[in-house]
Amino acid sequence: MPRKRDPKSEGELGSPLNGSESDPHRAPKKFKSALGTGDSDGLPCGLDQFRTYPIHKVNRLLEPGPILLVATGSLANKTHNIMTMGFHMMIQHEEPTLVGACIGPWDKSYDNLKRTGECVLAVPAVEMLEKVVDIGNCSGEDVDKWETFGVNPVPAPDPALDSGSGDGKGAEEGRARAPSVGGEGVIANIQCTVQDRALVAKYNLWVLRVVGAWINKDMDLEYGQGNQTPGNDSDPVGGGKPRKREMKMAHHRGDGRFVVDGKEVDLRDRMVKWKEFQG
Amino acid sequence: MPRKRDPKSEGELGSPLNGSESDPHRAPKKFKSALGTGDSDGLPCGLDQFRTYPIHKVNRLLEPGPILLVATGSLANKTHNIMTMGFHMMIQHEEPTLVGACIGPWDKSYDNLKRTGECVLAVPAVEMLEKVVDIGNCSGEDVDKWETFGVNPVPAPDPALDSGSGDGKGAEEGRARAPSVGGEGVIANIQCTVQDRALVAKYNLWVLRVVGAWINKDMDLEYGQGNQTPGNDSDPVGGGKPRKREMKMAHHRGDGRFVVDGKEVDLRDRMVKWKEFQG
Repeated sequence: MPRKRDPKSEGELGSPLNGSESDPHRAPKKFKSALGTGDSDGLPCGLDQFRTYPIHKVNRLLEPGPILLVATGSLANKTHNIMTMGFHMMIQHEEPTLVGACIGPWDKSYDNLKRTGECVLAVPAVEMLEKVVDIGNCSGEDVDKWETFGVNPVPAPDPALDSGSGDGKGAEEGRARAPSVGGEGVIANIQCTVQDRALVAKYNLWVLRVVGAWINKDMDLEYGQGNQTPGNDSDPVGGGKPRKREMKMAHHRGDGRFVVDGKEVDLRDRMVKWKEFQG
Repeated sequence: MPRKRDPKSEGELGSPLNGSESDPHRAPKKFKSALGTGDSDGLPCGLDQFRTYPIHKVNRLLEPGPILLVATGSLANKTHNIMTMGFHMMIQHEEPTLVGACIGPWDKSYDNLKRTGECVLAVPAVEMLEKVVDIGNCSGEDVDKWETFGVNPVPAPDPALDSGSGDGKGAEEGRARAPSVGGEGVIANIQCTVQDRALVAKYNLWVLRVVGAWINKDMDLEYGQGNQTPGNDSDPVGGGKPRKREMKMAHHRGDGRFVVDGKEVDLRDRMVKWKEFQG
């Protein structure tokens, strides 16, 4: 069930960054300039395949408990790494939107996160599940996981510069910016900064603050219940068609087995106490 | 992906309670004596429908991100309450097994948890999803949710007394013990104590320690891949038959829509780095 935001944190933690997602369907001005696009098959694999998504709604992507990819480090200095993560949670819907994640010193990503205070959580679709597992079963110390597994790191747009002139750099020039994960197999990219390290030493538990979110333009956010023609498995994806792909996530059962999103049960009419989260 | 335990916390936090689950298929000696059994339909609804489950494997129940029920308070003094929760995570596999959960002052359960330091996380099967949503959309301040929704609270067995003579009371006599959730619609009950309140004031984030776990005897923990005859929808459940029910969880999409476990993808052979979690 959704949790109301912590009144204590309002104001104190409220961020002007959130203003960048006032129109979730409009790409930030400098969005296009920061893209990596195209791959060897001519398929889009950069952030041009994504559109901005409301930060206060990322619980719709994370609360179901999907297996995630986590990107850390920086493309600029080639410290970018990617890992797989199943230990995460929503902590707070908004003002600010907070996420918990366990990343420990056994992960190369831990050093990146510790140093830069930034990461991107990517929600993979079930189509790239084998890749996701393989990424989780080797170390960035030994291999360039991006190259080995054909996953495309793309510079994340800076939501803080949404309304600026845009020169392709972050508000703090030279600051490490974790890359997003490109490709049609990715449902969403969620850009985070570290909000609280209080429980990192004890439990490797990071409290992350969501500062930007992007959703794959092909995804059917209404799960087949909207106006668009629902897609089916034999349809090519995208290509200007009105069809949308079902947003199928994978959930780790903890031992290498995964369960894939099945049928939907719509109980919105019974959610009488929490209408504020249905908008 | 599974996370290795935090070496820092070993020893310091290791608990003799974990020894109580040395044989996961053997019910604690005092188990039967503490049961609530039977309901008006003659169906089992007490803990006799459950068997002990290894504490260090509860990630297999929680990591997929199911919607949960949380029971708090005590049957003895009628403060027992039940709520619905989607904001939770695995933090650590074992020594001790740790779970994160967001429960805030807007929940009646918050007061119970604060006072007793105990709760039970119950994993509901999809069959009771409507009930789960209704439980999350009213307050224990206004109604007796157990009675209103026909959910049966049963005293949790005390894992600390597993090898004791068993008199039906906890090791600390008179201590409040959160009830478990009985009934065939419940996949598992996970008994927790509060491990760390450091982030409760700021984020309503509780670090919980798992001290006992019980799984529904009817559940097919091999997801249809074991030796038992897989069940199907038209089969009666249990009744001494070798058939087992599929363990179908529901995942909250954050706005009153839920996605139900679909097909399984078995990628255990690719999990080469984390074999320790497959036993």
